[in-house]
Amino acid sequence: MVKQERAARTREALIRSAAEVFDQEAFSTASISAISSLAGVSNGALHFHFANKAVLAEAVEEEALARLLAVTDRALPSGASRHVQLLVDVTQGLAAALCADVVLRAGFALSGELNRPRRAGLRDRWRLWVHETLRRAEEEGELRPTVSAGDVETAVVAAAVGFEVLGGRDPAWLSASTVTRFWRLLLPTLVPAVRLGGLRAEGTRLT
Amino acid sequence: MVKQERAARTREALIRSAAEVFDQEAFSTASISAISSLAGVSNGALHFHFANKAVLAEAVEEEALARLLAVTDRALPSGASRHVQLLVDVTQGLAAALCADVVLRAGFALSGELNRPRRAGLRDRWRLWVHETLRRAEEEGELRPTVSAGDVETAVVAAAVGFEVLGGRDPAWLSASTVTRFWRLLLPTLVPAVRLGGLRAEGTRLT
Repeated sequence: MVKQERAARTREALIRSAAEVFDQEAFSTASISAISSLAGVSNGALHFHFANKAVLAEAVEEEALARLLAVTDRALPSGASRHVQLLVDVTQGLAAALCADVVLRAGFALSGELNRPRRAGLRDRWRLWVHETLRRAEEEGELRPTVSAGDVETAVVAAAVGFEVLGGRDPAWLSASTVTRFWRLLLPTLVPAVRLGGLRAEGTRLT
Repeated sequence: MVKQERAARTREALIRSAAEVFDQEAFSTASISAISSLAGVSNGALHFHFANKAVLAEAVEEEALARLLAVTDRALPSGASRHVQLLVDVTQGLAAALCADVVLRAGFALSGELNRPRRAGLRDRWRLWVHETLRRAEEEGELRPTVSAGDVETAVVAAAVGFEVLGGRDPAWLSASTVTRFWRLLLPTLVPAVRLGGLRAEGTRLT
């Protein structure tokens, strides 16, 4: 029992160390020794948990996905534009999480690495969530009739990837005020003028 | 004379080959031999032109910057919202150029590489150009008085980096229709309604 607990902790430490190393350099140059040494274990112990660096990267992506789901999985706000407000809240939450959480950050970066096998990564999952949320907003008549949900999806997904990538060099791109500026600009186009007052570009409280 | 010309051609071929290799994998893992072999020259010939990979990467960035400037340096369109239209036209031109030109694409990617020394890269230059163009648009009264040029800059710079990064995996993100969708969404917020008819989200002809 104690042994199992220790193994789980080592696994967790290795995933976090791998994320820190991947966050600092590309996956392809990240060294296994740097990861095990940062986690305070031997290379042998690392290989006991993860056959190779690709398997370790998959574990980082899986853990990052769990954290992305924790950000997107929140109660629907109240109000007439609740899906649009949810989109704003989750974008704010994602930027804050990307700033604070190295595992989430590494997971997003890994999904953009060109020399890894192409599979559904975090950016694809994020896009899917934005797509679904906007579809519901459209269904419930939250969007202006002149606005296409697809156009909004394009802008939101592209800007979020931009914030994520630029934030790697300059955290100001992931600040609440940057995301608020983006929504302050976009919201008047998205929703009818009478509904604008009920929306908060800076996001509503966490549930 | 002939010798100088041959040297210039070899240099050009090496820059293009380096861009192609950097475009496929990260700068840090790109091999000098892969670059020289793609250019059809020996490693010795490569080292005659470029002391090391970092110097070669700088040459790629410099050439990419020249190409970015060729995209931004175009005659101001006519019309009441000419700086806004210029911004649209240049964004369209940049997306098309990123799709077609491996040197430009590699230059942008290099400016985002975390494990290279931080210097003003293509993304910074792009941001500066967007900043200047919006400042002029604001000065000439092209923007709605309720819109902040800084908010627009944030959205345009972030979305453009998003298109660039996502376009590395899926060229559809750099298509004219993607960029048009972005502007179709943003333009009604940017300019007064009476001026909207004079603007083209798909861009105006190249000058």
